[in-house]
Amino acid sequence: MPHYQIAVIIGSLRRDSINRQLANGLIQLAPAEFSFKVLEIGDLPLFNQDCDEHPTASVTRLKNEIAAASGLLFVTPEYNRSIPGVLKNALDHGSRPHGRNSWAGKPAGVVGASLGTIGTAVAQQHLRTILAYLDVPTLGQPEAFIQIRDGFLNDAGAIANDNTRLFLQGWMDRFAAWVKLHAG
Amino acid sequence: MPHYQIAVIIGSLRRDSINRQLANGLIQLAPAEFSFKVLEIGDLPLFNQDCDEHPTASVTRLKNEIAAASGLLFVTPEYNRSIPGVLKNALDHGSRPHGRNSWAGKPAGVVGASLGTIGTAVAQQHLRTILAYLDVPTLGQPEAFIQIRDGFLNDAGAIANDNTRLFLQGWMDRFAAWVKLHAG
Amino acid sequence: MPHYQIAVIIGSLRRDSINRQLANGLIQLAPAEFSFKVLEIGDLPLFNQDCDEHPTASVTRLKNEIAAASGLLFVTPEYNRSIPGVLKNALDHGSRPHGRNSWAGKPAGVVGASLGTIGTAVAQQHLRTILAYLDVPTLGQPEAFIQIRDGFLNDAGAIANDNTRLFLQGWMDRFAAWVKLHAG
Amino acid sequence: MPHYQIAVIIGSLRRDSINRQLANGLIQLAPAEFSFKVLEIGDLPLFNQDCDEHPTASVTRLKNEIAAASGLLFVTPEYNRSIPGVLKNALDHGSRPHGRNSWAGKPAGVVGASLGTIGTAVAQQHLRTILAYLDVPTLGQPEAFIQIRDGFLNDAGAIANDNTRLFLQGWMDRFAAWVKLHAG
Repeated sequence: MPHYQIAVIIGSLRRDSINRQLANGLIQLAPAEFSFKVLEIGDLPLFNQDCDEHPTASVTRLKNEIAAASGLLFVTPEYNRSIPGVLKNALDHGSRPHGRNSWAGKPAGVVGASLGTIGTAVAQQHLRTILAYLDVPTLGQPEAFIQIRDGFLNDAGAIANDNTRLFLQGWMDRFAAWVKLHAG
Repeated sequence: MPHYQIAVIIGSLRRDSINRQLANGLIQLAPAEFSFKVLEIGDLPLFNQDCDEHPTASVTRLKNEIAAASGLLFVTPEYNRSIPGVLKNALDHGSRPHGRNSWAGKPAGVVGASLGTIGTAVAQQHLRTILAYLDVPTLGQPEAFIQIRDGFLNDAGAIANDNTRLFLQGWMDRFAAWVKLHAG
Repeated sequence: MPHYQIAVIIGSLRRDSINRQLANGLIQLAPAEFSFKVLEIGDLPLFNQDCDEHPTASVTRLKNEIAAASGLLFVTPEYNRSIPGVLKNALDHGSRPHGRNSWAGKPAGVVGASLGTIGTAVAQQHLRTILAYLDVPTLGQPEAFIQIRDGFLNDAGAIANDNTRLFLQGWMDRFAAWVKLHAG
Repeated sequence: MPHYQIAVIIGSLRRDSINRQLANGLIQLAPAEFSFKVLEIGDLPLFNQDCDEHPTASVTRLKNEIAAASGLLFVTPEYNRSIPGVLKNALDHGSRPHGRNSWAGKPAGVVGASLGTIGTAVAQQHLRTILAYLDVPTLGQPEAFIQIRDGFLNDAGAIANDNTRLFLQGWMDRFAAWVKLHAG
């Protein structure tokens, strides 16, 4: 049976990030043949093209982990109506050097958590623009703008609210099918 | 006579950045009552909300320099159809902590340099979205998507090509008037 | 005392448009020296560059009404994560023919109403991109993504909910100051 | 052998539209099992939700033609840093009424022609945002921002310039594979 390794990229470095909680809850809804690895992006240097040919160990690790993945799961907050700088910095590193874009061809899904109701819609549009350029086929619907409140995960680490869990199960089913279609 | 101090934010960390060249050429076209200071953004940490209340010296310096400025000049490349992560990271730092957005109310202009013809149009749109949210009044026209070739600056450090210099002089005149209008 | 005539452009043609309700409620919060006129955009033809030099009466009327205004108030729903085609069509007509952009220099504000919580944030970003290109100085903050429920306007035609009215009063005060600053 | 019928949507109504020329040139590069039909969008009414349940014959025709297609080819100019209102109006009609989005699931490609060098990059980003929402899987790379000059098509109606034809052949090959993958 084929196995699908998904690289998870979380746009926030906060220890108690609600997007990390969302990722954790979502991962539990995946089919058995999927596994997930959260990529570390907090130890990357700020991208500087002068260093393209002498990447740090953290950059090389990131690119290797992307290359090893069958698909990508982006879970990100919105900062100032765009994606966080820390996430864009990781995207920039993975795309370089010129001609060695590690993201290309990896099927992806995009979700985001927010505390308020306005949500992460604009950030996700910017991310989709970037992913299209990086040649990353990205799942369209269902969009997922998830409002997180205390108690999002129950004591067992699962999504507590039935409606939210059902919605995200539907999202995960579409995502899994999308990865399988594109991972060939 | 009033004096206008402009904070210049360059989106690339490359030593020989063409956007730095563009900034240098542009600054020379400013009225006498304007001075310019390029802000260092390459020594900022990756933004982490957990550190909001204990900023590094580099973050405090950035926020003080923004606060001291009468206006903002963004000069940025496009990376992967958006602004560089390094620039977004600086924007995120300057906007924090919640309620202490240093950018608010500072009039701004946006220009960008590229080697190819496609230019920096999409990055500038993302930047404009972010700046509107940060309550930064941003000059609309003329847009400036500048193609840079060898010899952009002559030996005296001025813009070599007559048409480009004339266009950028017109841009600077509009920018200066915009700053004066909003700086009250 | 100077008088400010504001052209109101509503992105929906529905008779019972919630954005029309929002416009009506908002207009009542304006200072005494402001008056408002809703522009008709539902009788414009689909823009065709071949007709640039022979505009219909509706196109000429639209351009004259824009020219006569001191400022612009856009009140629009989001359709399919962008502005409605009907609104973009009006923007295109007002911008033409080449060199005779009627929108240029008119200070503007952008608000939007939705039934759901996701709101009109992405549409407003697209609109801001277009307005920047059209050289329309557009108010940044406060953003206004208004959720409309039955009873938004009371029997007297005023905004029923105290918090919403207070928020929109603050919006209108900022908008009025913005128009005055730019209308010189 | 399976056959693929592609609906072509051209964003300009001009008789001598350079985007129509681009579409005509591109169609000739398609594999034998592909055929193309340009959809008429110039006779659609401006979208009004009140008419959702009583569509004009032109709206019904559009929706039927989309439904019959295996894929979508968008060829569009940029107007005022977004897609033309006429194109957005067609997208809005095809997406309605609620729950009967005709575009959903149809694989698509996006190209654009311009006279100048800045091209259609921003319009294409807005279009990609809309298409993602409409659940249209859209080809990422190669992007196609085509500068059109006199003599783009030769007397035989083929793309005259060798480099441009070669580039667009590569684009068409990727597009055809994308349609086949998603048309299942």
